[in-house]
Amino acid sequence: MMRNSRIVSRLIKIAGKEKVFSSPEDLFCYSYDGTFLSVVPGVVVRPASTREVAAILSLASAEGVPVVPRGAGTGLSGGAVPVEGSIVLDLTAMDRILEIDTADMLAVVEPGVVTARLHRAVEEKGLFYPPDPSSSSVSTIGGNIAECAGGPRGLKYGVTRDYVLGLEVVLAGGEVVMCGGRTVKNSSGYDLTGLFVGSEGTLGVVTRAVLRLIPKPEARQTLRADFKAIEQAAEAITAVLGAGVVPSALELMDDVTIRCVENYLHTGLPLDVEAILLVEVDGPESTLAEQAGLIASLCIEHGAERVRVAQTRKEEAELWRARKAVSPAVVQVKPTKISEDATVPRSQVPALIRAIKEIARRYRLTIAIFGHAGDGNLHPNLLVDKGDPDEMARAEEAIKEIFQAALSLGGTLSGEHGVGLLKAPFMELEFGPCGMAAMKKIKESFDPFGILNPGKIFGRI
Amino acid sequence: MMRNSRIVSRLIKIAGKEKVFSSPEDLFCYSYDGTFLSVVPGVVVRPASTREVAAILSLASAEGVPVVPRGAGTGLSGGAVPVEGSIVLDLTAMDRILEIDTADMLAVVEPGVVTARLHRAVEEKGLFYPPDPSSSSVSTIGGNIAECAGGPRGLKYGVTRDYVLGLEVVLAGGEVVMCGGRTVKNSSGYDLTGLFVGSEGTLGVVTRAVLRLIPKPEARQTLRADFKAIEQAAEAITAVLGAGVVPSALELMDDVTIRCVENYLHTGLPLDVEAILLVEVDGPESTLAEQAGLIASLCIEHGAERVRVAQTRKEEAELWRARKAVSPAVVQVKPTKISEDATVPRSQVPALIRAIKEIARRYRLTIAIFGHAGDGNLHPNLLVDKGDPDEMARAEEAIKEIFQAALSLGGTLSGEHGVGLLKAPFMELEFGPCGMAAMKKIKESFDPFGILNPGKIFGRI
Repeated sequence: MMRNSRIVSRLIKIAGKEKVFSSPEDLFCYSYDGTFLSVVPGVVVRPASTREVAAILSLASAEGVPVVPRGAGTGLSGGAVPVEGSIVLDLTAMDRILEIDTADMLAVVEPGVVTARLHRAVEEKGLFYPPDPSSSSVSTIGGNIAECAGGPRGLKYGVTRDYVLGLEVVLAGGEVVMCGGRTVKNSSGYDLTGLFVGSEGTLGVVTRAVLRLIPKPEARQTLRADFKAIEQAAEAITAVLGAGVVPSALELMDDVTIRCVENYLHTGLPLDVEAILLVEVDGPESTLAEQAGLIASLCIEHGAERVRVAQTRKEEAELWRARKAVSPAVVQVKPTKISEDATVPRSQVPALIRAIKEIARRYRLTIAIFGHAGDGNLHPNLLVDKGDPDEMARAEEAIKEIFQAALSLGGTLSGEHGVGLLKAPFMELEFGPCGMAAMKKIKESFDPFGILNPGKIFGRI
Repeated sequence: MMRNSRIVSRLIKIAGKEKVFSSPEDLFCYSYDGTFLSVVPGVVVRPASTREVAAILSLASAEGVPVVPRGAGTGLSGGAVPVEGSIVLDLTAMDRILEIDTADMLAVVEPGVVTARLHRAVEEKGLFYPPDPSSSSVSTIGGNIAECAGGPRGLKYGVTRDYVLGLEVVLAGGEVVMCGGRTVKNSSGYDLTGLFVGSEGTLGVVTRAVLRLIPKPEARQTLRADFKAIEQAAEAITAVLGAGVVPSALELMDDVTIRCVENYLHTGLPLDVEAILLVEVDGPESTLAEQAGLIASLCIEHGAERVRVAQTRKEEAELWRARKAVSPAVVQVKPTKISEDATVPRSQVPALIRAIKEIARRYRLTIAIFGHAGDGNLHPNLLVDKGDPDEMARAEEAIKEIFQAALSLGGTLSGEHGVGLLKAPFMELEFGPCGMAAMKKIKESFDPFGILNPGKIFGRI
């Protein structure tokens, strides 16, 4: 709770009494995100405008109080978990889609806009905003920008960073900076826009974003291929991409994941295979049959047991239903799900899967592996029980080894979840002391008093 | 010339006698780039390895001597123009293509690799490196990264920044940092890779780059449309992009440009039109006829006088010949060409063209306008005579007004040439004092003694 009642009353002056929350029940609701971490903040404020955000940051700066920006709290690395005594900046009230410009193919939005709402709004106008994190029905654009969210479409279309043209950002002291703009090309000075994307609220608070849109693909087609051996699935992926086809999604589910989903959905998934690939192609209607046919034959050629091409929208929904049920399915097994997103060059996917399975065995853990295999971004989900300290200790060691395995295969700690609190201790493994020093210099120059989301990315600095 | 002969002998110790140049003739050869600016450096050194680059920067740092990194010197904003008494770091000897990985679709290269050589090398393996600045037959990847170079393919495929996965960078003090890596997705910490791209050698020296490749498009087709009124051409562009077609190039030439090229090539270009659009589509062979047909009919619908679709490779080369001859053609008119690349949201292209034409009239200047109209990136080329001080003074005023026009239309100073020296005085117009302060903080934290390419981007700081 906020010890300093003067700060609470100043916040009330800035944002209004009904936008400042400090009861224990309210604070509890803001204590966690999509991880198992939880810290109760000092106070929550829900600003309605850039001006209010600037006033709050200026106050926090003067008082030396940490500020933790927050969207929907669906993050999977702890980026929105509060710091004790902090001001949580709840940005969900700034949720206007200010503009959808069909001629220049861009949208201007506030950070609290829910991702799926933006998807619907632009698709109604024949346009397309590709980034599609699995939490898109609740996640906000501001959170997506903070963590550089991705999603299945990343393989073909890239991630959030690739769609942010410009930002309005409030800096630590309350100054408002505009960077980037409304042009699709920009080579003027440093790419501040790209720097803020993925900076997890540690350099500034995004209050407005200009997002690039593209024409909505005319049509899409989905197919599923089942493989006895995970290596065959990996070879099929390489063959497909090597043939010049870039699917709009190329998702993999391993045997543990398949079993979890089948136990949950009873939809007849094959329990005798090591991997399922779910592949979606999109583009002009006239090209789909050829693309899907080529993929199907490459899968068969590389040992697929069977390939099923969705012939109707209903069949397509059926195929995707299994993939979309992964998250609810895996939490049936154990109450706590630790979702990682180690990412490797795509040729190393089989090696990473083998390493994770070996780690699971050694630490006696259930790890479901699924994810965006086409871009090397896997989500090993450790299925554990937060209440079992022994299991949690084994999980912690296992996670460390998974990170080490990913890095030794030329990979990275995070493909799309960000670093947050959970991966901060491992950053130096990836970047070395010089790389970390370079990032810290940037952090210190933007936030000399360390009030912006402290602890994230760097741990303590 | 280098006053400090001790530095010259230290450089000789690092790189070898035959790699250090200090005769007046040699220094003169390194005094200019693709602009009309020229400053003779103190000494030139041509390192052969990252280790040598690190030793040189460490020496320069200790001695407080400015360092100006340089590729092929084709830049159009003055980014590689030396500072008086500086060490020019000629990176052209570090020109190895270290790896082309077809499974992970990436290339690892040294900075001195010529862009077109990389194009050929990856295309031989069925892959594609899209960025294609017009200078690609001579420009280097290091220079492309420094300025975030683009090219006609930017509309569909993006610019250099979109293809840099990872970098090895030597910092001001000689420390070597690795950022990014070999994965197509990366959400670990700040995007240092993206920050270095386009930083014009002011934050560090790139010594190695991991570049993303994509499958080589199966086929392409080109067409040309001639328009009586430039507004019609602009409307046709909006219609084409609005119909969901994304051409791999969408180039515009205005009447002044057409006349220059026709006087030079005598190829029968129409002299009674205000604009020519050159459109290329690529992708699966089977989709080209439909795409080209749709574009042709949209051009006709929006008032094109005539549309010519290339039926053979020879006809295609013929159509592109006119566009590629623009640079040699315009310098026939006047000895000095000042090439700008003001960029606006694409819907503002006609407004920017009108503004430039009005400015040309008012200042009695010949300005040829051409460029990548599909992404709003125009290249107004002021055709002047460096020896005519009155004309140069008018050109200077005109450039200022062109920048103001671009910014007031929601645009940016540079789409793909960078800021260098020429646009530095205008940066605050675009970014305001807070934006400039944020960039300066980054500069100061990476280069506290200001030895890295001083004056670029910021002017004096």
